Amino acid sequence: MTIEEVSILRNDMKEITKQIMQLVNQRMEIARKIGAIKTNLDLEIIDDKVELGIKSYLFSNPEYLNLDPEFSGRIVNMLINESIRIQNLEKNKLNGKQEIIEHKTNSSVQPTKSPPTKDEHKIHKFEIKSHLDVFNAAKNLELQGFKIIHMEVGEPDFLPPVEVKNELTRIYEMRRFHYTQTAGIRDLRKGLSNHLANISAKNGFDIFEPISPDKIIVTPGGRFGIFCSFSALLRPGDEIITIEPAWPACFDCANYLGVKNRVVKTSLEQNWEPDISEIENQININTKIICLNYPNNPTGKILNKKSYDKIVELARKNGIYLLSDEVYSNYAYEPYRSVINFDYDKSILLGSFSKTFAMTGFRVGYVYSRNASLINKLIKIQALALTSVAEPMQSCALLALNSDPERNNKIMKKRLEIMCEHLKKLPFEYVFPDGAMYVFARIRRDLDLTDLKLVELLLNHGVAVAPGSGFGSNYSNYIRLSTCLEETKMIKGLEIISDLVGKL
Amino acid sequence: MTIEEVSILRNDMKEITKQIMQLVNQRMEIARKIGAIKTNLDLEIIDDKVELGIKSYLFSNPEYLNLDPEFSGRIVNMLINESIRIQNLEKNKLNGKQEIIEHKTNSSVQPTKSPPTKDEHKIHKFEIKSHLDVFNAAKNLELQGFKIIHMEVGEPDFLPPVEVKNELTRIYEMRRFHYTQTAGIRDLRKGLSNHLANISAKNGFDIFEPISPDKIIVTPGGRFGIFCSFSALLRPGDEIITIEPAWPACFDCANYLGVKNRVVKTSLEQNWEPDISEIENQININTKIICLNYPNNPTGKILNKKSYDKIVELARKNGIYLLSDEVYSNYAYEPYRSVINFDYDKSILLGSFSKTFAMTGFRVGYVYSRNASLINKLIKIQALALTSVAEPMQSCALLALNSDPERNNKIMKKRLEIMCEHLKKLPFEYVFPDGAMYVFARIRRDLDLTDLKLVELLLNHGVAVAPGSGFGSNYSNYIRLSTCLEETKMIKGLEIISDLVGKL
Repeated sequence: MTIEEVSILRNDMKEITKQIMQLVNQRMEIARKIGAIKTNLDLEIIDDKVELGIKSYLFSNPEYLNLDPEFSGRIVNMLINESIRIQNLEKNKLNGKQEIIEHKTNSSVQPTKSPPTKDEHKIHKFEIKSHLDVFNAAKNLELQGFKIIHMEVGEPDFLPPVEVKNELTRIYEMRRFHYTQTAGIRDLRKGLSNHLANISAKNGFDIFEPISPDKIIVTPGGRFGIFCSFSALLRPGDEIITIEPAWPACFDCANYLGVKNRVVKTSLEQNWEPDISEIENQININTKIICLNYPNNPTGKILNKKSYDKIVELARKNGIYLLSDEVYSNYAYEPYRSVINFDYDKSILLGSFSKTFAMTGFRVGYVYSRNASLINKLIKIQALALTSVAEPMQSCALLALNSDPERNNKIMKKRLEIMCEHLKKLPFEYVFPDGAMYVFARIRRDLDLTDLKLVELLLNHGVAVAPGSGFGSNYSNYIRLSTCLEETKMIKGLEIISDLVGKL
Repeated sequence: MTIEEVSILRNDMKEITKQIMQLVNQRMEIARKIGAIKTNLDLEIIDDKVELGIKSYLFSNPEYLNLDPEFSGRIVNMLINESIRIQNLEKNKLNGKQEIIEHKTNSSVQPTKSPPTKDEHKIHKFEIKSHLDVFNAAKNLELQGFKIIHMEVGEPDFLPPVEVKNELTRIYEMRRFHYTQTAGIRDLRKGLSNHLANISAKNGFDIFEPISPDKIIVTPGGRFGIFCSFSALLRPGDEIITIEPAWPACFDCANYLGVKNRVVKTSLEQNWEPDISEIENQININTKIICLNYPNNPTGKILNKKSYDKIVELARKNGIYLLSDEVYSNYAYEPYRSVINFDYDKSILLGSFSKTFAMTGFRVGYVYSRNASLINKLIKIQALALTSVAEPMQSCALLALNSDPERNNKIMKKRLEIMCEHLKKLPFEYVFPDGAMYVFARIRRDLDLTDLKLVELLLNHGVAVAPGSGFGSNYSNYIRLSTCLEETKMIKGLEIISDLVGKL
């Protein structure tokens, strides 16, 4: 063996690389042709079944035994994604449009007509895609002097616990404003391990193993828990499975990381219960995470026992992580099982102080996993990205744990009951939520109204609600109504809705 | 055009995909062979020049004109990285080792001997690589009852401004605990635009254009500004240039993102001035960012006018971003130029409240760039990762801007003078820092002592200092001494050092 041999082998490698790229080029030429035909025939560009077909065809093939299957899967996913991009390019070229923008833009929303007037009958047009767009549009209207009833956002209107108030006045004197351990103040993590145990006990379920504070990391909000977990576990070309309708954070993070999001849709008819065989069908060699969110935003659904058991079995069989976003744990009106009530170590629990203690702006969330090496990875990523969570905010969170958030649960449940009583009389269909703080209501077909039209109409009459299409592509005939506002305001809002849809 | 045609084309695509994967398989077989030969000949697995060779060979080739070059580059990078992984696997197999762990681990530091005693003469062994390891080891010793003088960390010992104290007591009552705009509270961004203008004015330099609050984003600490900027601008296979010795955040973030870090070393002999031709030599087609940090951590260096001019010219000529970490702006003892004093729009200023206002634990930093589209990208990434910075912390930062941090500058300068007076009499070499709050001191050669040995010795006698090797591979005969502690403690620490090195 000599260095000359290395040189010869390197030349072979270069040649092979060149051939690979020539074939990639050919593949993209075909993609262009397919794009043109699909545009002419008005077919959807993305076809999940064809994609999965390509993968299973390849991986049933013994020639690749020497290749790392994950690596191969990623390469194939990259080729597929580029093909889709090229087909879209072709479609837009033929349709005379510009290239579509890769990432969804949260365009700041502004009424198109100006200058503003206070004439209630003047109709503003909005560019709305999600609940955040509605929130921004509503804020703009308020700046113009309009009064808006906010039923679009998930920010509880309660005050944070009084313990937090007291702690804020002590922070300076106690000098609690330094760097902390990246994983978070130890007392806070200890407090959280009790807190989690208590939630399970309250719901009547056992924790599989004692919760070690060493397996908890405190993050700046639940969102960073998702971002961090995805960053730790996923690479471009990997895949996740989400169950829609869904809060779009998982989708957005996946998109950002070049990760494919495979969607399982659920329906009102099926009481928002996912079809397990559909989840199974989406699983392939690159599937790394199944994302769960129960009590669910936007439907309020809590998964039934049988479905949850089956999902855990599927995950176990395929070695897939279960990321369970349980930020609505305090707003369960039926017993709810946490992912930590299962004997499954590839599970990730995501929690937050935002909803439970009405502390959205403090930005304190946390991740717990029995998997110590995963938590260590998250700690490394957090150390890299932001050192640690602000100590004053951690201290406030620690003190909040001394309070009982049960009262918030009671109030929210009562509001949901009132809201549903009102909706009963209106042309909406819904199931009473098992948890959370929203009603996800379908607009009755005979109204012949899309979510965006209805959202716009309501906004022009002082009521902000979230469009269903922000939670998945199948839900453009839904709106999400939040109960994060005082009862009287909420009733006033529902009356305005009643008046408006009554006239339609 | 019919749907049957799509079906035929899809089959062609499958076949091509299969051929691609067969070639990929062949390529990895070659990688395995090369790995075996390199192991036998004891050659390095990674060879920068060969990598660049493959890329330039491919991209000089007209056959790929139809392929998106970024996409092709990523595919090639994936192939190269997988080859490296396979070569390493082969090497470890032949050497009888397990697969190497991909990411660097920051092993938590613990004294190896236990149980602990308070016997001052008992020598603990530490696993130390960076100032953070020293900090953790020192904290562990303190838990065991030892007294430690902390000269290893860059956390000012001052109190935050009294305005912050007052604001903390108002947060709850004023209900400043909600989600804010992702870019940060508008008043805070307005305040920062004045703050930045004032710093430039104080140093006697002009700002090229008025600082718009719309081009500022408030981040959870300066670190997230780096993480976010890198995420926005870099993809695996891209490159950055850093000037060492350096705070390791840029290196760590680059490493995490699969970005190559090319290093330009500076030396005490050259008064820490970088050699511009060396920077120029490192620039190639993949270079996206040059990272600057003046006043510098750890040397305290402020770049001279000529060097800075040349670096800006180099960046302009090659279309490279300049990321200027100016978190020590308040601790400049010589006039210092900010990157915003240049007429260059691919510049990024990174600032923080941590050092200037002694607010490390509040985790508030910011990024300003004239490049509005870059700031919009950062806003999107921050929205995705963490929604917004905690509102109470932003409110405190806003109030801090009403205070004058000049006093902190005066105290730190005086401490540096005292420290250097002491060091003069000791076997250390250094240049008096132009700024910041450290002395980066070289251990005189005749002591025949590495930084890690000295750090361990000092730690065992109650003084924590940072090892030079944490700031770059050429600096294992340096220690960094911080002036973030009261004068009397600092003098005590220096006396202990004096006693110890006197005995060597």
